[in-house]
Amino acid sequence: MAEIKLSGIGVSEGIRIGKVILYTHSVRNQQFADISEADVTGEVNRLAEAKARSIRETEKLIEQAQQTVGAEKAGVIEAQKSILLDPTFCPEMEKLINKKLFSAEKAVEQIVNQVVAIFEKMPNEYMRERAADVKDIGSRLMAALTGVKGINLGDIREEVILIADDLAPTDTVQLNKKYVQAFVTQKGGKTSHTAIFSKTLGIPAVIGIGAGIEQIQDGDTVIVDGTGGICIINPSEDTIRSYSEKMAKETKDESVWQAYAAQEAVTQDGHRIEIGANIGTAADARYAVEQGAEGIGLLRTELIYMAEASLPDEEMQFNVYKEIVRVMGDKSVIIRTLDIGGDKELSYLKIPKEMNPFLGYRAIRLCLDQKPLFVTQLRAILRASAYGKIKIMFPMISGIEEWRSARSIVEEVKGQLRTEGRVFDENIQVGIMVEVPSVAVMARQFAREVDFFSIGTNDLVQYTLAVDRMNEKIDYLYDHFNPAIINLLQTVVNAAHAAGKFVGMCGGMAGDPKAVPLLLALGLDELSMSATAIRKVKHAVSQMELTKCKALLEDVLKMSTAQDIRLKVESFCENNGI
Amino acid sequence: MAEIKLSGIGVSEGIRIGKVILYTHSVRNQQFADISEADVTGEVNRLAEAKARSIRETEKLIEQAQQTVGAEKAGVIEAQKSILLDPTFCPEMEKLINKKLFSAEKAVEQIVNQVVAIFEKMPNEYMRERAADVKDIGSRLMAALTGVKGINLGDIREEVILIADDLAPTDTVQLNKKYVQAFVTQKGGKTSHTAIFSKTLGIPAVIGIGAGIEQIQDGDTVIVDGTGGICIINPSEDTIRSYSEKMAKETKDESVWQAYAAQEAVTQDGHRIEIGANIGTAADARYAVEQGAEGIGLLRTELIYMAEASLPDEEMQFNVYKEIVRVMGDKSVIIRTLDIGGDKELSYLKIPKEMNPFLGYRAIRLCLDQKPLFVTQLRAILRASAYGKIKIMFPMISGIEEWRSARSIVEEVKGQLRTEGRVFDENIQVGIMVEVPSVAVMARQFAREVDFFSIGTNDLVQYTLAVDRMNEKIDYLYDHFNPAIINLLQTVVNAAHAAGKFVGMCGGMAGDPKAVPLLLALGLDELSMSATAIRKVKHAVSQMELTKCKALLEDVLKMSTAQDIRLKVESFCENNGI
Repeated sequence: MAEIKLSGIGVSEGIRIGKVILYTHSVRNQQFADISEADVTGEVNRLAEAKARSIRETEKLIEQAQQTVGAEKAGVIEAQKSILLDPTFCPEMEKLINKKLFSAEKAVEQIVNQVVAIFEKMPNEYMRERAADVKDIGSRLMAALTGVKGINLGDIREEVILIADDLAPTDTVQLNKKYVQAFVTQKGGKTSHTAIFSKTLGIPAVIGIGAGIEQIQDGDTVIVDGTGGICIINPSEDTIRSYSEKMAKETKDESVWQAYAAQEAVTQDGHRIEIGANIGTAADARYAVEQGAEGIGLLRTELIYMAEASLPDEEMQFNVYKEIVRVMGDKSVIIRTLDIGGDKELSYLKIPKEMNPFLGYRAIRLCLDQKPLFVTQLRAILRASAYGKIKIMFPMISGIEEWRSARSIVEEVKGQLRTEGRVFDENIQVGIMVEVPSVAVMARQFAREVDFFSIGTNDLVQYTLAVDRMNEKIDYLYDHFNPAIINLLQTVVNAAHAAGKFVGMCGGMAGDPKAVPLLLALGLDELSMSATAIRKVKHAVSQMELTKCKALLEDVLKMSTAQDIRLKVESFCENNGI
Repeated sequence: MAEIKLSGIGVSEGIRIGKVILYTHSVRNQQFADISEADVTGEVNRLAEAKARSIRETEKLIEQAQQTVGAEKAGVIEAQKSILLDPTFCPEMEKLINKKLFSAEKAVEQIVNQVVAIFEKMPNEYMRERAADVKDIGSRLMAALTGVKGINLGDIREEVILIADDLAPTDTVQLNKKYVQAFVTQKGGKTSHTAIFSKTLGIPAVIGIGAGIEQIQDGDTVIVDGTGGICIINPSEDTIRSYSEKMAKETKDESVWQAYAAQEAVTQDGHRIEIGANIGTAADARYAVEQGAEGIGLLRTELIYMAEASLPDEEMQFNVYKEIVRVMGDKSVIIRTLDIGGDKELSYLKIPKEMNPFLGYRAIRLCLDQKPLFVTQLRAILRASAYGKIKIMFPMISGIEEWRSARSIVEEVKGQLRTEGRVFDENIQVGIMVEVPSVAVMARQFAREVDFFSIGTNDLVQYTLAVDRMNEKIDYLYDHFNPAIINLLQTVVNAAHAAGKFVGMCGGMAGDPKAVPLLLALGLDELSMSATAIRKVKHAVSQMELTKCKALLEDVLKMSTAQDIRLKVESFCENNGI
């Protein structure tokens, strides 16, 4: 058997080698006979029972999800429950039984397919992904009707690699990390719930592998490389050996890194840098603390908005922020105000279709234009600031005027709260993301006015190099080691420090251990990253000497290509055990 | 009657006040009766005659266009002729007559509507605009069949303001500038042929005004402000007075500017700056010379590609470049290599649909990826360099590696030509556009390697501020007076001059008379602009004193908002008679 290599999207890191278990949760291509008039009442009752049973099962799954992936993400399954209860979902099936003499199964199939088709045609990827939720409900109803259950994911009790056409959120929460070593799906995009859940669970995963998945058989040996987004079927002995070595190194690295979670990030010559986490929910905050986060460098509030079917109100937001602050104790939490638009959309906020959404109506531009929405969020943040150490950060600032407008709305909201006699942190710090090139260029002027900077390298690199990193035709140009980027980072850090201001970084570069020597030398005060990168980066910092890093930076600043810099930095890291 | 103000896209500058003539070239909502079997042959003959007549008319229009708008643009009407001759166009109509007993008119209507619908659904704006060509052919066929001709645009012999739902290229070339003072259309975008033709003809125009156009009646008085993109129906006396004053000023300005066409652009204290033109064709070059262009700062070669139905070959390109060089005599011509992608597409080059085309696969990225296409163009340019003073310029360079790759392909092509014994300019200068922020940031490194810079402010502003200026929700952020832009311009000019290199500017800022004092002070060697702006800018330069401009720049560099800079610069200009 020849080795077959399939590529997909690696959504959760790690390498695993194991035996395949195939999982399919949809009943496909089955023909359901129609019924006679006499059967209608019985069939309607069968449907009602299946519905009731599905609701009970869903409620059980919600409980389970709250424990495994946290309350916020369990909300996804809550949404499934509301679809089951929707007055146009099950009642439409009933109509088909009554009027067209469909069997309950056929009625379920038809309505589910109709709704799925609607979602799949939506222009917004996030909404398209919701088709998976509807299919999931359909499968549960169908299982309740037919008694055919397939594999119960929660019952898996041997080490396997799960291969599925798609995994619904309710599938994912049932996965037991002890037995399910990794999973691979045919469908799914970067914004699918499967992607988000697998990362939170820490199960290596490759999704969106496409039609090639049909070549995988039950019991096959496969290698899943969640870091590289690769799945290898029937690997040769050489391939297995090479991946086993990588795995062994990962495991060894893991055990080395483990020790650093509880430590501060200090170089060999005593220079400390703060390590924070980028999070979206309170569950993320808990996990981040476990991984050694010394604060939250970036709370992406858009996830709170994306999980809801309408604009989350002040009270709801207040509770989320308060809960996160409570989890973080005396550690600081930088809350970024709504960064929607671009690749992130909200179904209930009508943002006109744009030719270049990354250069469009998004983030602070939208918030300044839709002031009531912005005020609601600022009220919730300020009220939560009474319970911990919160800082406010504005995304996508491009000019001083925008900063001043946004800042003045914060003052306006403070005034409101004062009048209402509400408690909040009167001295709350307010800063900005440095992600639009103009702000990096004008950093000295901004540093006079803002309380802090946080450099968002992902967007800064995109705009500075005019490269959409999601565009695979040209993503080779996207590199945070580009000399123009290093140059701009230096401008920003120097400007901040000259004005006595704090400057952190919360883009992908901050979580890249290979970037650590340059970031130390540039003098960043804080690096904020996804929780899984924290131990790795703390370890990298501990291996460095600041003086050597500074010498490296000197050399790098003389270089004129990203390639030269990358090679130089990589060899430096290798010499320092990274 | 109340005054009504409508907004559209101002595509050709100037203010005009006059009486409306309504023009509609499509036969609408007309019912055409079906025919009997006996009439089929007669009806097919009627269609054939109408086709022959339409072809003759089209040929006449092609001749006319060659005289009024130049040979390249006449190509658009050539394309119409080929649609008339297309084996799936008229023959499909014939089939409807034969098989469905449609009258010739009904058959024409149906096929034209079908083809129009196909074009209108295309995701690419350029292709959508082609629907106008098909409608135009449809109208001509219909007129030939019915004898109903409506207004013949070429016959207009009184001063009017033309109001139309849409103008086809064949309409536009018939317009007599002496009588048609201005025109306004309901439909049309920035890339429509109507937009391009009106600019070339120099008739003030506002297009894409939308449904509001229905409020305009034949004989109404309207004001068309092609600069502001505004059309005012039944203006009040106050409005007429205010616009008449603006017009009078325009006319006065025009007569003042006229004198400057033949002069060099020299400040009062003797500093000279070179003034070039941005062009697309040899006809543009002729017009540019009339207007006082001292060279071509930017030849947009993509227009040559866009006018063709397939990739233009070396010989065809060589002839175009040679003709332009011939027109320009000993003046230099900077030829920019193909800048396709982004908002400019070619039907015959399959560029995958991108989420953010401005940050995608375009210009030099595409040329380096599709080397044969690039080599063909470079061969044509180099061969033309034997006939005049050509320089080569690469668009969208973002890193040194790209520049080096592109540069080395030029050397490779020179090698080929040498082997073939072809003549070309061995010392041809090769430079780059500075339009991606990374290049501005790294200008010192680039200045060591390139022969010259030309700053493309349109893209530079877009990327630096992360603003798509075509997006009306956020175009208020687009301003070349943004302090980050002034700062980057200074970096680029200083870097170029420190290395003894020439630095020009070919973006929209170069043609803005109000930007002249800052551009003089920054030390740009050349400003290249649309031909219509040349006299205005030469006049502005002549009013300035370089020492005062330098003092202005000093003040501006201390400012932190675009608004402050704009006010400062505007008041400076006003004090200097601009």
